[in-house]
Amino acid sequence: MNSNFTFASVDTDAPRTELHDLLKLTGAEISINNMAPDTEAPFFHHHKLNEECYIVLEGSGLVYTDGTETAIGRGSVFRMSSSVVRKIRAGSEGLKFLCIQCQENSLTQFTFGDGAIDENIQW
Amino acid sequence: MNSNFTFASVDTDAPRTELHDLLKLTGAEISINNMAPDTEAPFFHHHKLNEECYIVLEGSGLVYTDGTETAIGRGSVFRMSSSVVRKIRAGSEGLKFLCIQCQENSLTQFTFGDGAIDENIQW
Repeated sequence: MNSNFTFASVDTDAPRTELHDLLKLTGAEISINNMAPDTEAPFFHHHKLNEECYIVLEGSGLVYTDGTETAIGRGSVFRMSSSVVRKIRAGSEGLKFLCIQCQENSLTQFTFGDGAIDENIQW
Repeated sequence: MNSNFTFASVDTDAPRTELHDLLKLTGAEISINNMAPDTEAPFFHHHKLNEECYIVLEGSGLVYTDGTETAIGRGSVFRMSSSVVRKIRAGSEGLKFLCIQCQENSLTQFTFGDGAIDENIQW
């Protein structure tokens, strides 16, 4: 196997799928989450080094961040710094979301600043 | 505004939505992509520093990586190292996917290794 490319097939409707170990990620932990209606994360928490970005794909709910409550639903995207105390609640439709965890301030360049076009390739 | 928490609402069906600038991400660039049926990325490319992870949410297509073609569809998840020459093609159903770009080897700890539980909070 070429370790430069790792691949898997997952059930995107499973309660929680974590990609770091599955794909041997080296820059992020990524989870695909499906919370049942009217449930919540089991505890409040914050992080030591990592920022998190959430992308809500379906459903609705609430997110608690440092004493503030924000309504979330399909298309809500949000970032929280490592220190933020957080918890998520799913509403009556449940909640499908991705959570991307990366080390804060680790990105130095991206997209056109980091990419290089390859020419003369046949496919 | 508390810069520890950034929030936006996006159309997850738009052709391409980039979250780095929108949410002031510091550890990743994340894009939500909807390719029209039977289209492909405009060029082959690789990266200098960044690994990419893809999550296919709907549709089907093909991904080219260093001369190899892999069929992809709903639930396909894959990682490619920075050096991999790549291109994506959407099949007849189109292709909805996320692409997460992070600096290779930047993650030092995650989830239970990086998280800290906060107790005695009322919500």
